[in-house]
Amino acid sequence: MTELTNAEVVAHDIEHVFHSWSAQAKLAPLAFRTGHGSTLVDHDGNEFLDMSSQLVNTNIGHQHPRVVEAIKQQADLLVTTAPANANATRARAAELILDRAPEGFNKVFFTNGGADANENAIRMARLHTGRDKVISRYRSYHGNTGAAIVATGDWRRVPNEYSRGHLHVFGPYLYRSEFWAESEQQETERALHHLERVIQAEGSDSIAAILLESVPGTAGIMVPPPGYLSGVREIADRYGIVLILDEVMAGFGRTGEWFAFDTHNVRPDLITFAKGVNSGYVPLGGVIISDEIAANFDERVFPGGLTYSGHPLACAAVVATIEAMEEEGMLDHVRHLGRDIIGPRLEKFAAEFEQVGEVRGVGVFWAIELVSDADKRTPASAAYLGALKKAILEQGVVPFIADNRIHVVPPCVITDEELERGLDAIEQALRTVPVS
Amino acid sequence: MTELTNAEVVAHDIEHVFHSWSAQAKLAPLAFRTGHGSTLVDHDGNEFLDMSSQLVNTNIGHQHPRVVEAIKQQADLLVTTAPANANATRARAAELILDRAPEGFNKVFFTNGGADANENAIRMARLHTGRDKVISRYRSYHGNTGAAIVATGDWRRVPNEYSRGHLHVFGPYLYRSEFWAESEQQETERALHHLERVIQAEGSDSIAAILLESVPGTAGIMVPPPGYLSGVREIADRYGIVLILDEVMAGFGRTGEWFAFDTHNVRPDLITFAKGVNSGYVPLGGVIISDEIAANFDERVFPGGLTYSGHPLACAAVVATIEAMEEEGMLDHVRHLGRDIIGPRLEKFAAEFEQVGEVRGVGVFWAIELVSDADKRTPASAAYLGALKKAILEQGVVPFIADNRIHVVPPCVITDEELERGLDAIEQALRTVPVS
Ligand SMILES: Cc1ncc(COP(=O)(O)O)c(C=O)c1O
Ligand SMILES: Cc1ncc(COP(=O)(O)O)c(C=O)c1O
Repeated sequence: MTELTNAEVVAHDIEHVFHSWSAQAKLAPLAFRTGHGSTLVDHDGNEFLDMSSQLVNTNIGHQHPRVVEAIKQQADLLVTTAPANANATRARAAELILDRAPEGFNKVFFTNGGADANENAIRMARLHTGRDKVISRYRSYHGNTGAAIVATGDWRRVPNEYSRGHLHVFGPYLYRSEFWAESEQQETERALHHLERVIQAEGSDSIAAILLESVPGTAGIMVPPPGYLSGVREIADRYGIVLILDEVMAGFGRTGEWFAFDTHNVRPDLITFAKGVNSGYVPLGGVIISDEIAANFDERVFPGGLTYSGHPLACAAVVATIEAMEEEGMLDHVRHLGRDIIGPRLEKFAAEFEQVGEVRGVGVFWAIELVSDADKRTPASAAYLGALKKAILEQGVVPFIADNRIHVVPPCVITDEELERGLDAIEQALRTVPVS
Repeated sequence: MTELTNAEVVAHDIEHVFHSWSAQAKLAPLAFRTGHGSTLVDHDGNEFLDMSSQLVNTNIGHQHPRVVEAIKQQADLLVTTAPANANATRARAAELILDRAPEGFNKVFFTNGGADANENAIRMARLHTGRDKVISRYRSYHGNTGAAIVATGDWRRVPNEYSRGHLHVFGPYLYRSEFWAESEQQETERALHHLERVIQAEGSDSIAAILLESVPGTAGIMVPPPGYLSGVREIADRYGIVLILDEVMAGFGRTGEWFAFDTHNVRPDLITFAKGVNSGYVPLGGVIISDEIAANFDERVFPGGLTYSGHPLACAAVVATIEAMEEEGMLDHVRHLGRDIIGPRLEKFAAEFEQVGEVRGVGVFWAIELVSDADKRTPASAAYLGALKKAILEQGVVPFIADNRIHVVPPCVITDEELERGLDAIEQALRTVPVS
């Protein structure tokens, strides 16, 4: 493998592999051979700094030795087992996850990723309430299966919209307020009012669940304003609706907390997770289930499952990831990075560059929103974003681009120096690429 | 880990882990610590012969050294990468899969398992045809996500039926004919007639896809009679419908072929796979895409994807699995096992035991159908099947029980002697447990 060139790997890959979210005739992938920490190395020996965490999942960085070792040890012992069997590694993974969840959560249902985590949370909510509809927000992403994709609140829902019972509301997003709000508090109050009115208008008895990303991620990293999530909790309680918080991208370190909702004074009924829980080293996701909801299925069969639920190899990666994050003090480090480095640097970008409409975020979870007209807040063009991406890549830095935004989402283990270097590359691109 | 007892592992597991398809207060799981080939070893040191292949996925047996080694090597090199990147191991996995597919299939879309493979095949069929409805058969299982679960044709669909556009037809199953048929040929003709009439009655312009397991697995291992699948192909062509064959359980060795449809003179438009492709050592599934359908997405974005699509660790297991199956002549071995051992032994069971209503299958993919009344073909009770399971387990053999059937589904690598021992255990149970 080491003797292949980038060009060979890319040619071989696009000949045989059908790529997600892409037009297949227009692919230009990178080809990494290996990596370590925040560094990726391609087949030609070039090094890149990863400011993307891939799909915002390698929170623990690349090739973390402890997690790799745990995977290899589990591979030597028992690589797979049916979900119906008990498994020591799986039990330990569940325990470590539950130790980090609020009181009153004592069961984990494992899946293969984020989409099927949300699928099963929705299923539990529907069976718990005997209701059908699920409310999520516009500007959200919940995954790509038949229920998760229609729960999703971005364009990816529309060409997939074959299943019913999903509706969408607007959430708080002051920079592009849908509520004519002029302050954060007003935005919060109005977003809650809007949510409640939709529930009433739809018939509150028909609503099984409200499904929200604790911090919407791919949609733009909009940290909820104070009082929003706790306000949603109150509304959910008022109408007997299950509150599902999707922590797939926001959880396990990204915001400097185990769960992004930890600082929002809210207790969900179901928590979905994937990505950061084991940095995606082996595919895994799941649902953390409150006692009230779990109790439904003590005597009644839960009608859900999948072949690889609670996969031992994936669970071994969970155990090692959580232990390493804990012992290396990664949450503290993330809080430091957000507070002392990313926040201040991004504020400077906003002050200096007219095309930076807004910067926002927390921990290692930030968005730089680019606009072609600062007053009208017109989103910058795809061509501009493409040119920025190219300019950043040319400096040996892998960025994460979504719509008209650069997301600053490096691994939690990135060092201060690496992070400054990554931000330098973004700054340089903002300075040199002509805005359009 | 080695010092834990079964009881400890089970207690720890059911305290924290929410189990699929189960009432949580009624769990009694086994707890395997390790395994090799067709053998599993629990935490108390007891050895079991695996006649289940877990969920019919460990085709290559447990802890195959070559596959374990490949996983460890990939773990050392690059454990994960975003799907948008090119990856050498993924390209090689796709190539090996495509080498085994019919002519005119040149692209693989990878997913995490069987359900999301079917999800994406359905998505492709809908976008290819501009139509909505999907026909699958009663007595089928296609997975547990929002589209796959309603495509499924067993009870597991009913409590999950929130998405529309799915309908079901009866397939050929002479032992329990829905068509008053008296010969296999009549059953085939009538099943095809029935399918065509449903298509016409639904409006053929509304049907995007016919989705069938090449050999329905969990639903009872009904090998399609000669002419059925090719007849379905003709009907699909007549109405411009995409034919998706689900090879998740039947593919990659189970029937003694790479694809179960290989002996049925049929060319599907999309092939879905998971399980056997890498024995589930690392979660992976996918869709093998015909050139006609792939061409839709050359210039147009395919609106589907998932974080762990084409996961390098899972792909490393694919490469090693296919190479090992090839080099060890596993397909030949499977054909031998089916033809020379399982088939003859099961025929003897049918002749000797009145409660054996029918035996059927191919390769290492067989069903023993148990009835409480041979004339009326009344399915044997859950209590009887539970007692059989217990009696088989007590002999150190792990069986696969589904409804009123024992499925004989050992790993492809099982030796002749082991297989005879497994069948002895089943025979002994059939002989000693009182029928009900
Ligand atoms: C918030 C959120 N939920 C769910 C998902 C879906 O996860 P997966 O791609 O593993 O199915 C994602 C993926 O990006 C996500 O960001
Ligand atoms: C034929 C078939 N299709 C799809 C699936 C779903 O696969 P998974 O459980 O990996 O989602 C299964 C699982 O048993 C299956 O047997």
